[in-house]
Amino acid sequence: MKSEEQFLELIDTYFPRDHKFLTLGRGDDCAVFTGDKEMCVSSDLFLEDVHFRRDYFTAEDIGYKALAVNVSDIAAMGAHPVAFTMDLMAPADLDDEFWNGFFKSMSMLARQNDMVLAGGDLSRADKLGVSITAFGTAPGSKRFLTRGNCAPGDILFTVGDLGLARAGLMTLEAVGIKGREAFPAAVLAHLRPKPKVLVGTLLNAAGVKGLMDVSDGLARDLPRFLGSALGADITMPTETLNGNVIAFALGVGADPVEVAMLGGEDYALLGACAPEDIDKTKSVPGLTIIGTVTDKSGIIVNGTPFQAEGFDHFDK
Amino acid sequence: MKSEEQFLELIDTYFPRDHKFLTLGRGDDCAVFTGDKEMCVSSDLFLEDVHFRRDYFTAEDIGYKALAVNVSDIAAMGAHPVAFTMDLMAPADLDDEFWNGFFKSMSMLARQNDMVLAGGDLSRADKLGVSITAFGTAPGSKRFLTRGNCAPGDILFTVGDLGLARAGLMTLEAVGIKGREAFPAAVLAHLRPKPKVLVGTLLNAAGVKGLMDVSDGLARDLPRFLGSALGADITMPTETLNGNVIAFALGVGADPVEVAMLGGEDYALLGACAPEDIDKTKSVPGLTIIGTVTDKSGIIVNGTPFQAEGFDHFDK
Repeated sequence: MKSEEQFLELIDTYFPRDHKFLTLGRGDDCAVFTGDKEMCVSSDLFLEDVHFRRDYFTAEDIGYKALAVNVSDIAAMGAHPVAFTMDLMAPADLDDEFWNGFFKSMSMLARQNDMVLAGGDLSRADKLGVSITAFGTAPGSKRFLTRGNCAPGDILFTVGDLGLARAGLMTLEAVGIKGREAFPAAVLAHLRPKPKVLVGTLLNAAGVKGLMDVSDGLARDLPRFLGSALGADITMPTETLNGNVIAFALGVGADPVEVAMLGGEDYALLGACAPEDIDKTKSVPGLTIIGTVTDKSGIIVNGTPFQAEGFDHFDK
Repeated sequence: MKSEEQFLELIDTYFPRDHKFLTLGRGDDCAVFTGDKEMCVSSDLFLEDVHFRRDYFTAEDIGYKALAVNVSDIAAMGAHPVAFTMDLMAPADLDDEFWNGFFKSMSMLARQNDMVLAGGDLSRADKLGVSITAFGTAPGSKRFLTRGNCAPGDILFTVGDLGLARAGLMTLEAVGIKGREAFPAAVLAHLRPKPKVLVGTLLNAAGVKGLMDVSDGLARDLPRFLGSALGADITMPTETLNGNVIAFALGVGADPVEVAMLGGEDYALLGACAPEDIDKTKSVPGLTIIGTVTDKSGIIVNGTPFQAEGFDHFDK
């Protein structure tokens, strides 16, 4: 990969410029978005040796996950992703084969979600890094699902495995990619998290009160979802957890429920609905009811107060 | 700076969350933009040892310029900046004093332009880096100024000094911050480029045909502005250049006009208007007429074809 122009040509082969959401596609000083809808926006970093390692992430895994973590934020608003911008930090040692793999998987995920690459920037850097800003629009109902709308008695639910990606990360860090044999579901959950776009829009249509992306672990994200005045009474039987989480926890001598609660990079959805809406909410596929909202702060898990904290990128 | 929470608290002290452009401010999975207007968007990287050096940029310079380069893209659309998201890569060795300086100057520039920080991400990294995505709306006329709308005979103009920031960069790289004494305007142009927001909206109101941010040097950006079918006949007398550009060029034995044409990080505006619109266009302050659009590709400068290329971050 020699020049900026050659890089941009490669990007053009993978990402079309036209999209119904754009009045002006990439290539000018700015792109222009059509102005008829409210839009939600989220921005995430995906950095080598912080969020991923090149020794067990393939080029395809990196390109995929860099976009997926952003799409997950859109999904957590009950919204449809429509566009993204990408700032790319590109080390000089990566060859054409790498970039083809990277852009191929990213563009497949973009196409599956009908998202257009609207612009971005490109620079040399010592380490590979991606900064993506993703955009979404509310479906028919014209409403975004936010945090902090709960009342005591509301029913809490999750969609997606808790603790599974963390088990995958720990496994990959300990033994590298061959950990895939022991814990295939866990490793896949870390390398290729699935944004839950369809489920998010279905929950939006079902009229749930709020929705959130669980990315720092349920123990840490639940208080963010509820706000400081409320708490939660969670029931989480071990046997409801993913088998890989249970096996991993037992292998390292940890409590599977604690692994699930601490999580980290789950990219699961956490939501709440009023008790009278539980039937239509439960009809959304993959949903697990985990407990109820309580009128004082603090989290009870299986009858016991839960204290541990989730993951802080800054504490590392 | 110990935890992510403390970092976010510091950001909250400098950047308000509320803005008329936002239905939902930062703190949720996404921010929500009001949906009544077309919006332009641009994204830029600002990376240590690629775009700036910590040995001659102060914390205030870095925070200011990281946002300014993005605002310049909005200005080049003839638009009003309204919001931005920021992904911040923060090395562990920077202290509270640094971050206060960084956020203070950035927030002042944001306030001057009535821009809200709508969201972002935060991560540890080896080197300091900022990825900003900025958003703008068209003023009353509801039009964005794009590239590629020129016809032969159109009049080309610039706003801002060409080559000045490049002279500043070369000086800073050669002798560090003490270069400020020899070439104060040049060094300031590199450290603190001024986005030309007001001028951009005035040019929009004056009905110019197109506008562009000159960031890679006029020699390289002119063909991007004109498209492949057109060229330009430029008249650039040495005495019209900034005195620092002339002095710097003479000092290093270069042609001042070549320094101006090659430029790089000028953050000047390049525009074109129809000949019949020249009077109202010329009324915009700071505007310099540089030549006319010709019907065949190639750039003539002071009667001679100009061949040199601008700056490619990837060629470094």
